[in-house]
Amino acid sequence: MNRGKIICVGLGPGDPELMSVKADRLLRSARHVAYFRKRGHPGKARSLVNGMLHAEVTEYPMEYPLTTEIAHDDPRYIAQLSDFYLDWQARLTELTRSEDVIVLCEGDPFLYGSFMHLYVRLRQAGQVPVEVLAGIPGMVGCWHATGIPITWGDDVLSVLPATLPDAPLREHMARSDALVIMKVGRHLGRIRALLAQQGKLDQGWLVINGTMADQQVMPLRDAPERCPYFSIVIVHGQGRRPANDM
Amino acid sequence: MNRGKIICVGLGPGDPELMSVKADRLLRSARHVAYFRKRGHPGKARSLVNGMLHAEVTEYPMEYPLTTEIAHDDPRYIAQLSDFYLDWQARLTELTRSEDVIVLCEGDPFLYGSFMHLYVRLRQAGQVPVEVLAGIPGMVGCWHATGIPITWGDDVLSVLPATLPDAPLREHMARSDALVIMKVGRHLGRIRALLAQQGKLDQGWLVINGTMADQQVMPLRDAPERCPYFSIVIVHGQGRRPANDM
Repeated sequence: MNRGKIICVGLGPGDPELMSVKADRLLRSARHVAYFRKRGHPGKARSLVNGMLHAEVTEYPMEYPLTTEIAHDDPRYIAQLSDFYLDWQARLTELTRSEDVIVLCEGDPFLYGSFMHLYVRLRQAGQVPVEVLAGIPGMVGCWHATGIPITWGDDVLSVLPATLPDAPLREHMARSDALVIMKVGRHLGRIRALLAQQGKLDQGWLVINGTMADQQVMPLRDAPERCPYFSIVIVHGQGRRPANDM
Repeated sequence: MNRGKIICVGLGPGDPELMSVKADRLLRSARHVAYFRKRGHPGKARSLVNGMLHAEVTEYPMEYPLTTEIAHDDPRYIAQLSDFYLDWQARLTELTRSEDVIVLCEGDPFLYGSFMHLYVRLRQAGQVPVEVLAGIPGMVGCWHATGIPITWGDDVLSVLPATLPDAPLREHMARSDALVIMKVGRHLGRIRALLAQQGKLDQGWLVINGTMADQQVMPLRDAPERCPYFSIVIVHGQGRRPANDM
């Protein structure tokens, strides 16, 4: 039986002051720290813990087999990704023979988190205990950046990946009071047009790197043509009146 | 000009280890701490900071003028509530003449938070700086209690107050991949029936007091007839395949 366990730590939206007390403690005492990153990049999760890790930590960058030549639905890409997860499943499991391993994850790991593919495999294998520590989701940091409550009363909030086709985006935009639109990136122009069709363009905000030192917040109407992949569009609820039978 | 400010601190879902580093520090050093509660109750937000407050703290329980005799949409109730907020707006502003005042708020204050009515008034008056500190929302604690990711890939997540009428609940249940249903309480039977109509009953979980010592998590199918007001129903996304054009 392995003595250690794998703990995926939610790092919150970016500001280290917004990490949980437990995350802060685990990170400062960790001896093995793993994180996903693209080859040639420092890794966003890793950059959030700059200055926090122990001097004797060993780091394990888990580099995605990302290639721009192969489409994400190509069987060759899926096979490569599967090998990548199998490999890291084995390596992390091996490390826990003696000690805990911390896996870094931006925001909250259970909300569109990159660790989840590995998590499911590790849980199925059942060789090592796996814990996941909640964090403040990136979207929460982004609505705080606007200084305006996201929902009141009976508002409905929908969280939409900008990568969805127009039809479902339009439906949810029409029916929900508050919106969080994730992974905006190159879909910014399309998102803006769809919100304009719903008469909601003037209520939209664009937040880039919410709660981080280089945070940018602006009305969507004033946004530039382009924005980074991890930008978020926010439409605040206006406070739907609770039903009388409350 | 007032020397202090009002800081509304998001306390997270319940487990004190999940409070942010900043919340923990502010709470332990606070000299003035205010929180909402119902008359005759200790107050949920207050109970989350048991054992954390400074020995010389002064507490300000803000007791709602709740009466069971008057309906919430009765003009007399609305007038009473308005007086209540005006009174506390004045009292908190007065306190900040010399020092900061901390207002406690469960979860994340900007997501259905009870401080927001006062926040809007304080911001409009502009007499004192008001800050709001993000916290892990209660719903995030609840989906962690299930041990299952809430969203993957291109999943759409909708957050629905159970107090909504059947028709919008049905629409959102049908169109969204993942669901968080808040304020379930006496609507439990109706929520269960609506999810069953959508073929989603077997995917539902009921979480009571998520992340707290008395947490209860169960498949919705096995839930009792009744549950507390702040219970949450969770339906996890199954991982909608991202569109090919990603």
